[in-house]
Amino acid sequence: MTISMYAASVPVFTQMLDSLSEVLKKAEEHATEKNIAPEILLQARLFPDMFALIRQVQIAADFAKGVAGRLAENELPAYEDNEQTFADLQTRIAKTKAFISSLDAAKFAGSEEREIILRPGTPKEKKLNGQTYLLQYGLPQFFFHVTTTYAILRHNGVVLGKKDFMGAY
Amino acid sequence: MTISMYAASVPVFTQMLDSLSEVLKKAEEHATEKNIAPEILLQARLFPDMFALIRQVQIAADFAKGVAGRLAENELPAYEDNEQTFADLQTRIAKTKAFISSLDAAKFAGSEEREIILRPGTPKEKKLNGQTYLLQYGLPQFFFHVTTTYAILRHNGVVLGKKDFMGAY
Repeated sequence: MTISMYAASVPVFTQMLDSLSEVLKKAEEHATEKNIAPEILLQARLFPDMFALIRQVQIAADFAKGVAGRLAENELPAYEDNEQTFADLQTRIAKTKAFISSLDAAKFAGSEEREIILRPGTPKEKKLNGQTYLLQYGLPQFFFHVTTTYAILRHNGVVLGKKDFMGAY
Repeated sequence: MTISMYAASVPVFTQMLDSLSEVLKKAEEHATEKNIAPEILLQARLFPDMFALIRQVQIAADFAKGVAGRLAENELPAYEDNEQTFADLQTRIAKTKAFISSLDAAKFAGSEEREIILRPGTPKEKKLNGQTYLLQYGLPQFFFHVTTTYAILRHNGVVLGKKDFMGAY
């Protein structure tokens, strides 16, 4: 009568990473067609003190990697945040997807009650159980950055619709 | 070793509706301080064919109401989409919160396997089980509109941070 922590994380992240990849493909095609230097879109942001597109994608990918990996008590691969092109972002998304799909679903069992410590050793340290960590921290953070990526591209005239954001469900 | 459909819906929607309410309060204060007519923010959008702020809030609230209500097999209250002011939006959020908090958690049991039909009788009709409906349709849709509301306000210079988006978790 319930759902698993695995079902509430890996398939959700995978669906949205796939749609993010498609959205970025359309953005790259748009830049090519309109003779827009790719950097214009890659460095676009909605306000001067918000992150640019590349950073939004990196952070979205990192939440997928970090949340799924921690729930499975897996070591987290380190990625360098050195992406500069659309192709680099596709690679980042692909390796993130490969990592989370490599996680053993059985390892997520019981993670809803496991203690997770955010920002350990800092003044902002916060302890959560795995359920709250996933549902009320990880998913909101992840969706924030995926949606902001979409919003940046829409604001810059890339032709996208909600269907592109949602992906296959 | 699992989580309930209730835990993956009502508390998540409630947290984000609370943060949405706070974000809109800050937006209204910003308009007052800067002598900006409230309509400028309420009608702001990121691109001409995207929804304006008011509509983003209405849709976010409707996903919270509709997804939680359908999972609980509850009748859905109809709201009119006639909001025109920040106060109206606060009322819409408050009644949405009151509705979802009135739902009986026990009624969500088994909803993960129940069939949900999206857009019934239309060419886009789609059948999902409750688990997919919540995790891979309802939550992404809800977060899309909450995040886009935040993005519109940030783009218009309202001083907000990720903490405002996240709310209390």
